[in-house]
Amino acid sequence: MKINYPDGRIFDKPSQPSLDNSSAKKKLIFGDRGMTLEEEINESNKYYRSHELAVIYKKPTPIQIVKVDYPKRSRAVIKEAYFRQASTTDYNGVYNGYYVDFEAKETKNKNTFPLKNFHQHQIDHLKLCQKQGGICFVIIKYVLLNRYFIMPADNIFDHWDAQKNDGPKSIQLKDIVNCSIEIKPDYNPTLPYINAVQQLIESRKEKK
Amino acid sequence: MKINYPDGRIFDKPSQPSLDNSSAKKKLIFGDRGMTLEEEINESNKYYRSHELAVIYKKPTPIQIVKVDYPKRSRAVIKEAYFRQASTTDYNGVYNGYYVDFEAKETKNKNTFPLKNFHQHQIDHLKLCQKQGGICFVIIKYVLLNRYFIMPADNIFDHWDAQKNDGPKSIQLKDIVNCSIEIKPDYNPTLPYINAVQQLIESRKEKK
Repeated sequence: MKINYPDGRIFDKPSQPSLDNSSAKKKLIFGDRGMTLEEEINESNKYYRSHELAVIYKKPTPIQIVKVDYPKRSRAVIKEAYFRQASTTDYNGVYNGYYVDFEAKETKNKNTFPLKNFHQHQIDHLKLCQKQGGICFVIIKYVLLNRYFIMPADNIFDHWDAQKNDGPKSIQLKDIVNCSIEIKPDYNPTLPYINAVQQLIESRKEKK
Repeated sequence: MKINYPDGRIFDKPSQPSLDNSSAKKKLIFGDRGMTLEEEINESNKYYRSHELAVIYKKPTPIQIVKVDYPKRSRAVIKEAYFRQASTTDYNGVYNGYYVDFEAKETKNKNTFPLKNFHQHQIDHLKLCQKQGGICFVIIKYVLLNRYFIMPADNIFDHWDAQKNDGPKSIQLKDIVNCSIEIKPDYNPTLPYINAVQQLIESRKEKK
């Protein structure tokens, strides 16, 4: 008997039960959810570096090291350490003479983006970098919608500062759509966000 | 009986013998050796950030985390982790619209600077950043001479590539003096290197 798998997966065990319709459909829709936003950006950065289009890295997680063992004939082992809070955003680097600085955020919401995803130090850092002439933004991924947006830092600041003055605690998707550049996931690079960065640069030049 | 301490150590016992002339002089000359180059740069970066003159950070050391404990009512403890090799240089950030990227190196030599202080990945990274229009250099500290130099990345590349072709394995101090900008340590900031960065930017503009 031949079993039909609607999502086209290849099975090597003949005795495995066939998937029911609903879970097969689920897998199809969310088939590209295997990669986190961080992985997608890291992959894209690798592509940009290898093609000499941009040099952008995720910064390592800051760790406070308390105890290190140095075993003979073997490399040092950290035996006690703690996570520290970062002072900056996660990503920075250089593109075509411009300093680029951004944070990446995922949400499982469908209509809003909660501002509690940001920390005060990230906002402060983005403000400082922007004052120095950096290209600053946030990449927001709506995981369940599979949509990606580059939201310029200025627009983030507006919502953040409004919230401080008892404004809304989240940004509506329609507001994000209005002020952001949408990025479509692709292959090589996985997330072609540098095109959007180029647009941000051009729109900044026009304003001047 | 009076005991002479040739290394000039200071004792807090009231019976302390007065320092002889030579060790007092020694202490005076090397009085500012308490700070490492890394500490001096971190202090200066703090000053530049608080005065909104530049936003430059040392990147955290990359760590590969293997085991983490999550004790109840207390923060996570990393129980097993290893140091990883960085892919980049240690410092980067933004100054007046320019992307700045550099490595900091100390030497206890008095006449030469051994090229083995660099790793291939640091040179590769500096080359990529330079191609993207970044301001790239190395800060070299001669610990025993108490002299500091900003050496442009191009000059480092020349020596590095020559070494690869069986050239000298180190750079002579006089060559560093010739091609670099000397920085004088100061107070607030401890190491006023941004002035030298400004000079690098201007000399690059002139070349164009």
